[in-house]
Amino acid sequence: MGLEEIEPIFGEAKAEWSAPNSPPLRPFLFWVHALGSSSLRVIVTDFHSNTFEAVRSIEQLEDMRDMIGIGGSWSEFIDYVIASIKSDDVKLILEGQSRLEGAAYAKLVAQKSKGMPLISISLAGLADAAAKEAIANLSLGLYKAFKNMHSLLINEQERRCQLTKMMSAEQEKNETIQRQLDTVLYSKRQKSQKMNDKVNSDALLVTGSQDSPDKLASKNAVSTKVTKRVVPAYRRAKVRGVLLQDTEDGGDN
Amino acid sequence: MGLEEIEPIFGEAKAEWSAPNSPPLRPFLFWVHALGSSSLRVIVTDFHSNTFEAVRSIEQLEDMRDMIGIGGSWSEFIDYVIASIKSDDVKLILEGQSRLEGAAYAKLVAQKSKGMPLISISLAGLADAAAKEAIANLSLGLYKAFKNMHSLLINEQERRCQLTKMMSAEQEKNETIQRQLDTVLYSKRQKSQKMNDKVNSDALLVTGSQDSPDKLASKNAVSTKVTKRVVPAYRRAKVRGVLLQDTEDGGDN
Repeated sequence: MGLEEIEPIFGEAKAEWSAPNSPPLRPFLFWVHALGSSSLRVIVTDFHSNTFEAVRSIEQLEDMRDMIGIGGSWSEFIDYVIASIKSDDVKLILEGQSRLEGAAYAKLVAQKSKGMPLISISLAGLADAAAKEAIANLSLGLYKAFKNMHSLLINEQERRCQLTKMMSAEQEKNETIQRQLDTVLYSKRQKSQKMNDKVNSDALLVTGSQDSPDKLASKNAVSTKVTKRVVPAYRRAKVRGVLLQDTEDGGDN
Repeated sequence: MGLEEIEPIFGEAKAEWSAPNSPPLRPFLFWVHALGSSSLRVIVTDFHSNTFEAVRSIEQLEDMRDMIGIGGSWSEFIDYVIASIKSDDVKLILEGQSRLEGAAYAKLVAQKSKGMPLISISLAGLADAAAKEAIANLSLGLYKAFKNMHSLLINEQERRCQLTKMMSAEQEKNETIQRQLDTVLYSKRQKSQKMNDKVNSDALLVTGSQDSPDKLASKNAVSTKVTKRVVPAYRRAKVRGVLLQDTEDGGDN
C-alpha cells in the first residue's frame, strides 16, 4: 500500500501542557496527509503561536510499527494508524514550560479505542514564515476537502432524488398489476360461483351485492389514469389464497 | 430576514494588485458569515501577509442596496448578495503599491453573472494578533462546516442505501405479482382455447407443445422462492391485451 492512497485527515486535538498548572490553550486543528508516495506529514496548529510539524518516511513508520508491537501486514498497520488518528481521542501534549512564543516541541497521541496501543508522533515547532506556510497549506487543504465533500453531497442528493422517482414509478406499476390481478381473479371467482350456484340450485339466483366489487374492479383496470388507491391488504391476501387453490384444482382436473 | 439565518460561505478569491506590473499573489480564501443578527462579516486572507476584514451592519447593507440600485424586497437583495459571493467570479483587488508587509486595503468584488450589478465590499488590512485571530476564526469555521457537511453526506449515503433496498424489494414484489397474473391468464386462455377446440372439432385434440408454457408458469407461481427471472415484455404485453378483451367480452355476455 503506497502512502499516496491515504486520504487527507483533518481533526481537532485536545491540547495540554506536559507541565502542570499551565494556562488554558486555544483549539488545535491537525492535518495528516501523504507527502508523495513515501512520506506522511502531520501539521498541528492553533493558528497563533503554536504550530508543529512532523514528517515520517516509510522506514520511520516501520520502526514505529516495531516499537508499538503491532503484528499483521503493512496495510493493516497503516489502517490502524489512520483509525487511531480518526478517533475522537486525539491529544496534543505540549512539551516544556508554557511560553508566549509557543512550545518548541509537542507530541500527538492517538488511541483507536481504550486498551489498544497508542500511536505517538513527536512534532517540532515551526516559527514565522514556516508556520505561516504550514497554516496556509492546512487551511487550503481543508478548503479543497470541503469542496470535494460538497460535490459528493450534491451527487448523493441527486442520486436520492432519482431513486425516489424510480421508487414511486415502481410502486405505481405494482398497483396497476395488482389491480389487473384483482380484476381477473374476481371475474374468475364469480364465474365459478355462478357455475356452482347453477349446479346446486337452478331456481336460486345470487346477484346484487356480490356483483358490485367486481364491477368496480373492472372499471379500475380499464381506466388508464393511475390513482393512489391501494387495495386493502386483507382483500389482496384473500384473493391470493383463492388463486392458488383455484390453479391447483385446475391442474388436477 | 435576519442575518443570522445566512449560512457561512467559504470561497476562493482571484487576487490582483490595483497597480500594474505587481508580483504574483498567493491563493486567497474568504469567509462571509453573520455576526449575530445585525451584522455581516467578511474575512479574506492568503495566510501570510495579507489578511483583510469588513463588518457591515444592516444599515450599511441598506445603503449598499440603494447605491447598487437593486429593486425588490430586502430578502431578495440578501439572496442576490449571497448568490454573487457564491459565484465563481469573486475577485480581490489589493489597493496601493505591492509591499512586503501586505496591502493596507482591499476590495472584494463579486458578480452573480455577466451584465448583473457588481457587489463590492471594501476591506481593511489586519496585522499581527488581529490577523492571526481572523485566520484562526476562518479556519476553525471552515472545519466546523466541513464536519457538518460530512454528517450530511453520511446521512445521504445511509438514506440511499435504504432506498436501494426498498427499491429491490418493490421490484421483487412486482415480479411476484406479474408471475401470478401470467399464471392466471395462461390458464384462462388455455381453458377458453380448449372449449373452442371442443366446439369446433370433437375429434381433434390439441395438446403437447401448447401445454408446456402454462405448466411452467403454474410451477413458478406456486414456488415461494423469488428468483431474478423476468417475464419477457412481449409476453406480458400480449397477455395483457388478451385480459382486457377477455374481461370486456365477459361483461358483454
